[in-house]
Amino acid sequence: MSSIYGHTFTIDIFGESHGSNIGVVINGLPSGVKLDMDKIQAFMDRRRAGGETWSTKRREADIPRIVSGFYNGRTTGTPLCMLLDNADTKSKDYQQGINRPGHAEYTGNVRYGGFADPRGGGHFSGRLTAPLVFAGAVAAQILEDKGIYAATHISQIAGVFDNAFDLVSITKQESDRLKTMRLALNSEGCKQKMEQCIMDAASAGDSVGGEIECAVLGVPAGIGSPMMDGVESRLSSLIFSVPAVKALSFGAGNAFAGMKGSEANDAYTMDGDKITAKTNNNGGLIGGITNGMPIVFRTVIKPTASISLPQQTVNLVSKQQETLKVQGRHDPCIVPRAVPVIEAAACICILDMMMERGH
Amino acid sequence: MSSIYGHTFTIDIFGESHGSNIGVVINGLPSGVKLDMDKIQAFMDRRRAGGETWSTKRREADIPRIVSGFYNGRTTGTPLCMLLDNADTKSKDYQQGINRPGHAEYTGNVRYGGFADPRGGGHFSGRLTAPLVFAGAVAAQILEDKGIYAATHISQIAGVFDNAFDLVSITKQESDRLKTMRLALNSEGCKQKMEQCIMDAASAGDSVGGEIECAVLGVPAGIGSPMMDGVESRLSSLIFSVPAVKALSFGAGNAFAGMKGSEANDAYTMDGDKITAKTNNNGGLIGGITNGMPIVFRTVIKPTASISLPQQTVNLVSKQQETLKVQGRHDPCIVPRAVPVIEAAACICILDMMMERGH
Amino acid sequence: MSSIYGHTFTIDIFGESHGSNIGVVINGLPSGVKLDMDKIQAFMDRRRAGGETWSTKRREADIPRIVSGFYNGRTTGTPLCMLLDNADTKSKDYQQGINRPGHAEYTGNVRYGGFADPRGGGHFSGRLTAPLVFAGAVAAQILEDKGIYAATHISQIAGVFDNAFDLVSITKQESDRLKTMRLALNSEGCKQKMEQCIMDAASAGDSVGGEIECAVLGVPAGIGSPMMDGVESRLSSLIFSVPAVKALSFGAGNAFAGMKGSEANDAYTMDGDKITAKTNNNGGLIGGITNGMPIVFRTVIKPTASISLPQQTVNLVSKQQETLKVQGRHDPCIVPRAVPVIEAAACICILDMMMERGH
Amino acid sequence: MSSIYGHTFTIDIFGESHGSNIGVVINGLPSGVKLDMDKIQAFMDRRRAGGETWSTKRREADIPRIVSGFYNGRTTGTPLCMLLDNADTKSKDYQQGINRPGHAEYTGNVRYGGFADPRGGGHFSGRLTAPLVFAGAVAAQILEDKGIYAATHISQIAGVFDNAFDLVSITKQESDRLKTMRLALNSEGCKQKMEQCIMDAASAGDSVGGEIECAVLGVPAGIGSPMMDGVESRLSSLIFSVPAVKALSFGAGNAFAGMKGSEANDAYTMDGDKITAKTNNNGGLIGGITNGMPIVFRTVIKPTASISLPQQTVNLVSKQQETLKVQGRHDPCIVPRAVPVIEAAACICILDMMMERGH
Repeated sequence: MSSIYGHTFTIDIFGESHGSNIGVVINGLPSGVKLDMDKIQAFMDRRRAGGETWSTKRREADIPRIVSGFYNGRTTGTPLCMLLDNADTKSKDYQQGINRPGHAEYTGNVRYGGFADPRGGGHFSGRLTAPLVFAGAVAAQILEDKGIYAATHISQIAGVFDNAFDLVSITKQESDRLKTMRLALNSEGCKQKMEQCIMDAASAGDSVGGEIECAVLGVPAGIGSPMMDGVESRLSSLIFSVPAVKALSFGAGNAFAGMKGSEANDAYTMDGDKITAKTNNNGGLIGGITNGMPIVFRTVIKPTASISLPQQTVNLVSKQQETLKVQGRHDPCIVPRAVPVIEAAACICILDMMMERGH
Repeated sequence: MSSIYGHTFTIDIFGESHGSNIGVVINGLPSGVKLDMDKIQAFMDRRRAGGETWSTKRREADIPRIVSGFYNGRTTGTPLCMLLDNADTKSKDYQQGINRPGHAEYTGNVRYGGFADPRGGGHFSGRLTAPLVFAGAVAAQILEDKGIYAATHISQIAGVFDNAFDLVSITKQESDRLKTMRLALNSEGCKQKMEQCIMDAASAGDSVGGEIECAVLGVPAGIGSPMMDGVESRLSSLIFSVPAVKALSFGAGNAFAGMKGSEANDAYTMDGDKITAKTNNNGGLIGGITNGMPIVFRTVIKPTASISLPQQTVNLVSKQQETLKVQGRHDPCIVPRAVPVIEAAACICILDMMMERGH
Repeated sequence: MSSIYGHTFTIDIFGESHGSNIGVVINGLPSGVKLDMDKIQAFMDRRRAGGETWSTKRREADIPRIVSGFYNGRTTGTPLCMLLDNADTKSKDYQQGINRPGHAEYTGNVRYGGFADPRGGGHFSGRLTAPLVFAGAVAAQILEDKGIYAATHISQIAGVFDNAFDLVSITKQESDRLKTMRLALNSEGCKQKMEQCIMDAASAGDSVGGEIECAVLGVPAGIGSPMMDGVESRLSSLIFSVPAVKALSFGAGNAFAGMKGSEANDAYTMDGDKITAKTNNNGGLIGGITNGMPIVFRTVIKPTASISLPQQTVNLVSKQQETLKVQGRHDPCIVPRAVPVIEAAACICILDMMMERGH
Repeated sequence: MSSIYGHTFTIDIFGESHGSNIGVVINGLPSGVKLDMDKIQAFMDRRRAGGETWSTKRREADIPRIVSGFYNGRTTGTPLCMLLDNADTKSKDYQQGINRPGHAEYTGNVRYGGFADPRGGGHFSGRLTAPLVFAGAVAAQILEDKGIYAATHISQIAGVFDNAFDLVSITKQESDRLKTMRLALNSEGCKQKMEQCIMDAASAGDSVGGEIECAVLGVPAGIGSPMMDGVESRLSSLIFSVPAVKALSFGAGNAFAGMKGSEANDAYTMDGDKITAKTNNNGGLIGGITNGMPIVFRTVIKPTASISLPQQTVNLVSKQQETLKVQGRHDPCIVPRAVPVIEAAACICILDMMMERGH
């Protein structure tokens, strides 16, 4: 089922970059949830292009219009459908046959026999993350009522690193603070250098990639299952649905490859009458199940595929080799706008898995 | 659904480390497939402990017994159930309440209210990868008939690195050669150093982690779908089901974070009358869909949690802090035996996704 | 997943009777399908209220607006979302707490804690069958290209019976003819009596039920699977999703209970070089799998729950017993308008199951 | 997924009539459930052939062997696998190419390309209902702890009718009593006539069909969802998985077709401080959701396909028309032994749906 995710709280995302509407149907919402639309809008605004160096010139208002499942300010419990308009489209930038390296035109062409909507990447576009963020904002509200918060920052852009989270002691305050920043960073120290890095790439007609670190705080121990229904399995399948994600690691992540067991294992201790871990190399997850520590993971985002530097490609219609300079409006670095997308995905997965366990 | 994976070709794994049997039910097998049981046994033997430094002393014959779905040497197309015996178990090594850091005793205890089978890790045990390997061996045979081969090697153990695959030009010969090696390496140059590294850890009562690189060759372009049914999404959910996996990356993987778009994008060219990519940073996958290049991914395996060095923990029954020296028989490094497990998982996922597209 | 159906060709229906929009997201559509919108409209018009005795006074234009998955007159293969407007709503007819016997207000109230949209039945309304019919009309077009046609008639209304289908020899001509009739009947002989029956109920402030017989012609042998993925299992789960359906039978159906094996078994014979059955008591299905004969089933529709005769009930808010005379605009008999709904459901199921087998 | 059922509590059934083993894997069992194996055996014994007129001469001990998910007398919460032996098989009765009318040999042959196991019907055999009954017996124990009981009787065999359940006031006592009877009947009055009816068919080399009525008592209001996840949808998909089932109706069922709304609607009243229905024409289900009344449904079982009277058929291998006299050991009437099967299916579905709602 192509664009459906979840077992209990499910999302079904539809739309294309330049179609009239994009949106999402959410099944399995609990009923009677008061949605704070201002808060949802604020979450969505974090993803919107805002005139920064790193943002596309395309501007969409992205004001969610809920057409079902919402009555008198509360969820009904039956499917909620939300629509967004595509208003600021310039479809003439996209011709049939164009095959931008790093984009899905070639693979989409084979998969759909040449019938995929080519305008702005169609259903493959990063634009489709807007309804994902809406669903995540809804999930986040429900999680907050359970004392669960996500905190997300840019851990790297093109070799410039932000301070990592302390895996044991991330706080709601950090979650709140990061939500207010256009460039979500633990330490402002690297901000200028990161921005410079993006500006340099932009002025060279190039782009840069990066990495995002996300933590989910307050999830009780015991969520998830061994093997196929582990939190890593369920979360990874949604995180890798986000365009441009190419790597995912939990806790100490890649560093595990070089560690000894005696360094990697998280020793247990008592915290009052509760068992807790002293360290959090496992990123809150052992055997696919939460241990009550923050769930922490890192996601690598590849550089924006759209660059104006000349590239070698083959036109899908003419089958001729050609040199391409990508037109259209794009982000020289998608990482800052991907921050709320990754956070939204985390909220959706965790809520789905908690509801499954009766929370 | 806890231990079920797949849409069309599905596996349902059951059993515990010290129960009478472990096994797998495979649904959706094509009918009429001749299974070469010797080849399946050879695949399973790659996972078996074989007396090497890095292997547990527990020895299981692991001879698959097929009880359904197989008639006159061919698959019937109806569910195939395969059983393995647990013969060499020493359950007295495991007491109720034991809480080994890095293992799932604590999380499993919360999840299952104290009723999970504690012997040898129960359903959380790496032993459960044996039926996964069986299913992967079956899938591999079907894929080979379509000209698809997997090649897998140890890319790192504890800071000792093997040569990486050339992302563009991996061959069936490499796939064949790697299958014959107890320590699957592209270059023998690092072999001695890796073994030493494991032996050192073992003699110190410690363990080491590592990384595995896997490539799947010959998958046609056009397999997968955008978003939730992308190959990365589907593969990751199975790879993270394998115990001890903590990171997964595709193609250039983590290196994308530091790359420019002009370096990362894979330019297209014509190869005869076929469009092909010149490079393979995307690991054969763009927009969730195969582009005909090798599918390449890396998996980080954390160090074996079981170490005999003393560790701080809290007993689950007494709730008392205690110093634990893990008993039982374990691998000081699980990476070599995880190689066929990761390969099996890749074969299962790719076959499932190809069958879905009518292949 | 509450309002999602299908494995390969999936539908996700959303909306409420009096919300701004209802609609459906279709995943898994083949790409490149030319949709004949006139034909789709004609299918939807069969369901619309048309001023007959048996129809509600509510009139909706029900002109489908496709917002995604459709480009240049053809399906793209990515999710197709279709919206319908709710224009002619009179929500003041519905007060909170109203509990109409035979309707889902009470059960919905318990299920959703009082937060379901009460206006016009909300998500429980028969109005939600409009997007189902759209999806069925799309499926029907794809099936017709494979030589598969559905034929559906009213087999009974309140004790007045139409001639049954000949289970062996239903034709495309009957399918075509039935699609043109407001009261879809094999024999016009019973038409006047049926209409009278409905008019009598209407003038008494009452309603009547009935039965619908549907046949799907041209489905090749070999579709379906034993046990849980049998055609009966998959079709029944969608047919019972249609509001007011309370019984379903295949082929000889209820008559099987009184038959002998020697009467019930369908003998085989050769038809040219093809094996075929001489009779069709099994309704085209044996062991969950099609045998190439028409798939034939009957569906019982309960009388419209909304009647203006006084009824005893308990108000959901006041918990007081009260005598209710249902207001609002309703069909004294829903059976004629349910004919295209049942046909749509059959087309959706059969297409889904055929695509699964690679057709 | 061919032989998998359920969302939260799932069953995966495997095996063939004459293979070494048949069995079931249950995922999603709550942990810590004490299983009363005697009670499970008693449930399974209700399905076993017991030497009566209506039973096959094949005798299987059907003693369940649990190989996983069960430790120290309680469920662990991880997958439970149960195996049964096929001991009393006479495979020589079945030749390749045999095509018994009413059986699935022809459809299975097309579906599986001639590779299905032909012995005793293979995976299509009624033998596969034994593991279904095991899973149902497990579910029944869990339901009983919640005060939920199923009662099932033969409502008809070949035109001989038992008294129907009173839809409003079925009791646990009736449930208990019916479980003890080899011929489960509300009224003993029809017993002799039914038996005679079966004996007559048997001595004529023929078989008879019938109908089973099942009620589930004590299910709270609010289980289920509108549309695709309604109880009728979910239950029907499992009931139609049982071989030989050809019709299913809820509550007043087929009678609805001839009823008026004023007769069909179940009026509400107060029972203490609880809303309840005065009648139960809807069989406990409105809008797909339970209303707290008994869930009541009827299932039509076609006559046993295996009869020794000569039948016209076509051999699948030779493609020659031939006259067949079915060999092998069969039940002249499968209805009595289908009673616990239908009850098991009901228990599995209801438990699955209750667990989904957090019960």
